[in-house]
Amino acid sequence: MKIKVIKIGGKLIEDDAVLQPLCDSLAKLDYPFVLVHGGGVMGSHLAEKLGVEVKMHEGRRITDAATLDIAVMAYAGLANKRVVAALQARGVNACGLSGCDMAVVKSRRRPVKDIDWGFVGDVDKADGKVLAMLLDAGVTPVVSPITMSEQGELLNTNADSVASAVAMGLAEKYDVELVFTLDKAGVLLDVNDESSLIETITPALYSQLRADEKIYSGMIPKIDNAYKTIESGVDSVRITSPNNLSGGTLVVK
Amino acid sequence: MKIKVIKIGGKLIEDDAVLQPLCDSLAKLDYPFVLVHGGGVMGSHLAEKLGVEVKMHEGRRITDAATLDIAVMAYAGLANKRVVAALQARGVNACGLSGCDMAVVKSRRRPVKDIDWGFVGDVDKADGKVLAMLLDAGVTPVVSPITMSEQGELLNTNADSVASAVAMGLAEKYDVELVFTLDKAGVLLDVNDESSLIETITPALYSQLRADEKIYSGMIPKIDNAYKTIESGVDSVRITSPNNLSGGTLVVK
Repeated sequence: MKIKVIKIGGKLIEDDAVLQPLCDSLAKLDYPFVLVHGGGVMGSHLAEKLGVEVKMHEGRRITDAATLDIAVMAYAGLANKRVVAALQARGVNACGLSGCDMAVVKSRRRPVKDIDWGFVGDVDKADGKVLAMLLDAGVTPVVSPITMSEQGELLNTNADSVASAVAMGLAEKYDVELVFTLDKAGVLLDVNDESSLIETITPALYSQLRADEKIYSGMIPKIDNAYKTIESGVDSVRITSPNNLSGGTLVVK
Repeated sequence: MKIKVIKIGGKLIEDDAVLQPLCDSLAKLDYPFVLVHGGGVMGSHLAEKLGVEVKMHEGRRITDAATLDIAVMAYAGLANKRVVAALQARGVNACGLSGCDMAVVKSRRRPVKDIDWGFVGDVDKADGKVLAMLLDAGVTPVVSPITMSEQGELLNTNADSVASAVAMGLAEKYDVELVFTLDKAGVLLDVNDESSLIETITPALYSQLRADEKIYSGMIPKIDNAYKTIESGVDSVRITSPNNLSGGTLVVK
């Protein structure tokens, strides 16, 4: 059976004028899917309203106890339930999950080296069996980036990493396509020209594009990460706009 | 199979010094259980921090859009995931659910008569089959009082009513005891004397106590409600302190 694991950014959830048409598209998909969402923007807005300072180090957020509570409220609470309700309103039997729920996504607290990142988790693995139980019951899991350590600590985690772990966890049982959405049509030869879309990336083409420096540098970690999930059993990775979930760029082995 | 449905107040979750020992007790129960939690205090505290005015009418809260968002963040987010993580840390395979998740608790928006209560739901019913799927897989559902209308609207709901609906939904398949916790040892003949606990209430004793005006008036709706759930198939209702989940007062038919 084919399954899609679709990652969407938090920005898409905050604005109802964007979320509602996205859920229309999701409700029309003819494959079962798992949705993984971020929530960064909603967390920042809530922190600002609460007067909690966002602490950064080299462009990355430090999650202290107050910031973790905000992340749990914004991502596991508001963002997650908004998406679930919008899907339910369209007849999709969605179930919101954070990593702690049935221990579906486990992570490790990032070790303190030069800097203590606080309650930040690096994803360990997702439990494909739990997700399969839901999928086989006709349920659409909607996963937030709040995960849990072995010790039962809630941790704030990168949603792209959660999506990759979910896809890898499901690859044992299903044919999985992992879909990353972004605010471009896909991987572009010229970042300012949507018509320069590359429809399919193979390892050979990717090597060539990198050698010729024809690929936008911001894309390199995304494609490297795509190949890591493919090596772990995921069939293919799609990088596309949320408006075109079956289009964009397909990364294949 | 015997199942307990245990309702706890939001106050118990906010203070970690109270939540942690409560989760110790829950982890030791020798029956499978469903936990239903409130969250009123956490919502009020968040509203205060955000400078959102709590609007009341005759002592009951009006839920406008901003207040609903706060309730979703505080109850479905922070309260729910704190409890789930605390149970997971003790080896209980908890799964947090709000009413929207797999449409497990459906409600109706309260009709506008003299007053518009806003996004407040009156519970319609809980889906016993969904909860049974989880219980039979060894999962402990942890249910927040955020429910969903048929139209997919999120609604703020009374947690006692959610607990009653969950118990009634499970009564088709299991022998269910519904447990309400409160800050007393149970139903007391003298509200100021914990030793005046009534261990068992039967319909005959209840009639007598009411006729003699020997029962604390605040208890009457709770016991009336207990008998409603018993008429709908629940075996018994326990009214007790969270420190003594197998004690207190047992209401039976």
